[in-house]
Amino acid sequence: MIKFSVFYPTTDGATFDHDYYRDTHVPLALRTWGLDEAEIEKGIDGPYVAAVHFRFESLEAMGAALSVPGTAEVQADVGNYTTIEPVRQTSEIV
Amino acid sequence: MIKFSVFYPTTDGATFDHDYYRDTHVPLALRTWGLDEAEIEKGIDGPYVAAVHFRFESLEAMGAALSVPGTAEVQADVGNYTTIEPVRQTSEIV
Repeated sequence: MIKFSVFYPTTDGATFDHDYYRDTHVPLALRTWGLDEAEIEKGIDGPYVAAVHFRFESLEAMGAALSVPGTAEVQADVGNYTTIEPVRQTSEIV
Repeated sequence: MIKFSVFYPTTDGATFDHDYYRDTHVPLALRTWGLDEAEIEKGIDGPYVAAVHFRFESLEAMGAALSVPGTAEVQADVGNYTTIEPVRQTSEIV
């Protein structure tokens, strides 16, 4: 199982709209990539103000999902909830 | 629900023993903190070579678990599998 995570580092002067993220952005990503669910985090302590985790059956399935044209729309939506530059991580779940 | 994550940043010259981590260290942490399971990651792409995620019912439950004397033993075990300085994050699962 593959996990694709996006982290938003706490950044001086930056804002993050958690409501928009949960209600609009992550659902858009799920629809675009054909997924049923994601895990959303709101940071309490540590380097990140927010994060999301998507799961895929394989690297191939992830590559196919992210290569759809709608991914550009998902990326273009980031400016609607934050000015933070996200950090991306792909991992195998052991 | 609270998630406590520990990330190991990819570090020049550092090693990470994924087998020891999965078979010995994380089970020790679970026993120490009275947890049934954790999610372990092996990094494929991104800033982290490995990560683990523990879940607690509340911040109070997490604080109580981590304050047991055995936590010192868990921390002392880190040197048995890596020289990387871990990054810790506490988040609310939305």
